[in-house]
Amino acid sequence: MPYVFEFHIKAEDGRARTGLLITPHGPVHTPLFMPVGTQATVKSLTPAELAAIGSQVVLANTYHLLLRPGPQIIANLGGLHGFTAYAGPWLTDSGGFQVMSLGHRRTIQESGVTFQNHLNGDLIHLSPERSIAIQEQLGADIIMALDECPPYPSSSRYQQDSAERTLRWLERSMEAHTQHRQALFGIAQGGTDPALRRWSTEQTTAFDLPGYAIGGLAVGEPKEATISAVALSTAIMPEDRPRYLMGVGHPEDLVAAIGLGVDMFDCVYPTRTGRFGYALTDQGRLNFKSAAHKNQDQSIDPDCDCYACRTFSRAYLTHLVRSGEILGLRMLSLHNLRYLHRLGERASKAIATGQYAYFAQTFSEARFAGTTPAWFQEALLAGGHRG
Amino acid sequence: MPYVFEFHIKAEDGRARTGLLITPHGPVHTPLFMPVGTQATVKSLTPAELAAIGSQVVLANTYHLLLRPGPQIIANLGGLHGFTAYAGPWLTDSGGFQVMSLGHRRTIQESGVTFQNHLNGDLIHLSPERSIAIQEQLGADIIMALDECPPYPSSSRYQQDSAERTLRWLERSMEAHTQHRQALFGIAQGGTDPALRRWSTEQTTAFDLPGYAIGGLAVGEPKEATISAVALSTAIMPEDRPRYLMGVGHPEDLVAAIGLGVDMFDCVYPTRTGRFGYALTDQGRLNFKSAAHKNQDQSIDPDCDCYACRTFSRAYLTHLVRSGEILGLRMLSLHNLRYLHRLGERASKAIATGQYAYFAQTFSEARFAGTTPAWFQEALLAGGHRG
Repeated sequence: MPYVFEFHIKAEDGRARTGLLITPHGPVHTPLFMPVGTQATVKSLTPAELAAIGSQVVLANTYHLLLRPGPQIIANLGGLHGFTAYAGPWLTDSGGFQVMSLGHRRTIQESGVTFQNHLNGDLIHLSPERSIAIQEQLGADIIMALDECPPYPSSSRYQQDSAERTLRWLERSMEAHTQHRQALFGIAQGGTDPALRRWSTEQTTAFDLPGYAIGGLAVGEPKEATISAVALSTAIMPEDRPRYLMGVGHPEDLVAAIGLGVDMFDCVYPTRTGRFGYALTDQGRLNFKSAAHKNQDQSIDPDCDCYACRTFSRAYLTHLVRSGEILGLRMLSLHNLRYLHRLGERASKAIATGQYAYFAQTFSEARFAGTTPAWFQEALLAGGHRG
Repeated sequence: MPYVFEFHIKAEDGRARTGLLITPHGPVHTPLFMPVGTQATVKSLTPAELAAIGSQVVLANTYHLLLRPGPQIIANLGGLHGFTAYAGPWLTDSGGFQVMSLGHRRTIQESGVTFQNHLNGDLIHLSPERSIAIQEQLGADIIMALDECPPYPSSSRYQQDSAERTLRWLERSMEAHTQHRQALFGIAQGGTDPALRRWSTEQTTAFDLPGYAIGGLAVGEPKEATISAVALSTAIMPEDRPRYLMGVGHPEDLVAAIGLGVDMFDCVYPTRTGRFGYALTDQGRLNFKSAAHKNQDQSIDPDCDCYACRTFSRAYLTHLVRSGEILGLRMLSLHNLRYLHRLGERASKAIATGQYAYFAQTFSEARFAGTTPAWFQEALLAGGHRG
């Protein structure tokens, strides 16, 4: 099977770009939000629903799938594509982030990370080589090198040691990588210190890889620091490779980061906030745990074409959420993903027509109702989107 | 709007029959299993999915909807059909069963039942008249008279007093009933005492109603007693009216009771057992909480045409259920309902071709693997289905 992974930029507007990523499991239009299927399932939704709302790449987590059901079972059933029946492109993360956030009694050594399985207490060692081997068993179209995502705040010393180790782990990951129809992305770290972020990004992109990720952000730092680090990263990263900002999924963050030239995003936010009873709209989140909408015949969002918006009133969704009914959280998860997919589609159209500044300004007026935060305006200016 | 509620028997085989029920929201093929949507939602499923698996009538519960969201909100949104977007026929129960099983500190008087709202502690009085008024607000195609379903065991004295009161409540329900495009069914009680069951059924069917229910069974009594009471009931009930056996949903019970001339069934069993990780098949329940199927590429049931069986392996469903993922319980709920709908369709076809004895025998061999219980054989004999 030939190595099929290409990225073509279709249009640019300031630093924003829209493009086409070609993968072994189909084309991907950028910019895009990628739903997170932690346990090889985007919570509550079927593959058919994901396809219907315009999901393209779906994520799965190496850490969780290593623990359960184990990569061999997934490999035997045809990898993630066969196992889950989602036939589009998959991306697996390396397990690094989960080891840091979920691992109990974890120890970081040069060789890798040793952690306690949160399900049964067993000690497990995850090295860069083992992460790649597992990801090759899982068979995703895009795989990620093992990295460390330090917590915020961390000392300069720790951030630097960690970024250097992540870079050494990337080299080892590249050497371990044998399935070349899977595209290996490297992850730049460096926290919010501009010098370290620049160093890590330059070193990471010095390797000729099919794509690069911006890691270690959206972990609690101020939004101004996130935006500065993203602006710095995309200015360094090569134009002709996709750029993936990890763990970011708030609508306003997508609009700001797309303006700075980011192509790919993932986050549990849309499905998690849906399970908690919230629906995303341009005007902000609607809270269906409250009784505010209990008599309203209108849909969540008149502009949305998802099944929930085509079918149900806010009154019914309020009833479902307040009664703890699964259909409620399922419909809000579906709507929220469709909302973020549409946001990518709207951004793409704005870029293609040279209207990104207008799109972002219109979005900002709806979202912030006249009190646009400074970080959002600065992101647009840095991206070259003057109103 | 004219009163559209007709029942036509299409074929008979022994005491089993297949028919067509015409309601204001479409035709209904009998015999059929009716999914339970306690809170105006069949747990985890959409109206589109219910339509796709061949659901016809869907149930909702007067008791739960009285407490939340309240009947006025549902009436304002177009009744159950508009509120839920399930456009097919609905049936609402009277609230009697839930008051008995869920009501705290309930008091039964001649006027009705007083109970404590299990959500907020308020005292609520449900009379036959109020139950009808609420059900008229909900707008179901079939509504039920308020009844009392005594627990098993109850004293003869209590059973008799209760059955007499339920009959007086039926008369009051008929007087209170004003929306005549909603068909009011009466519920016969009488427990498992043949004389009292006979008396209650004769008295109930002495009223000219569009359908009759067999209530007060499947509450813990021995299966032989259930079958005897059903056999006695269907022998008394008029041929030309639909017969509804309340709260029964185990596959073998459906096959036995259809053989005795029952037309309609409802139960939370298929969706509840699905949420608990079990899948219904002719061979019995498959347990997806166990690791037994974790490597199997095959579907739940090769004969099933539901989305879960067309899409997912047993291995993947095992992973979903064992990981506590919503998609797992959702797919098992969907499959289990489709299984019971197909069971109704298979029974109907067998009746139409005079093959009910063969169908029931084949089912029995798969289900009981050579150890068919006496009650099942007796039901088939009583229904006139000799192998």
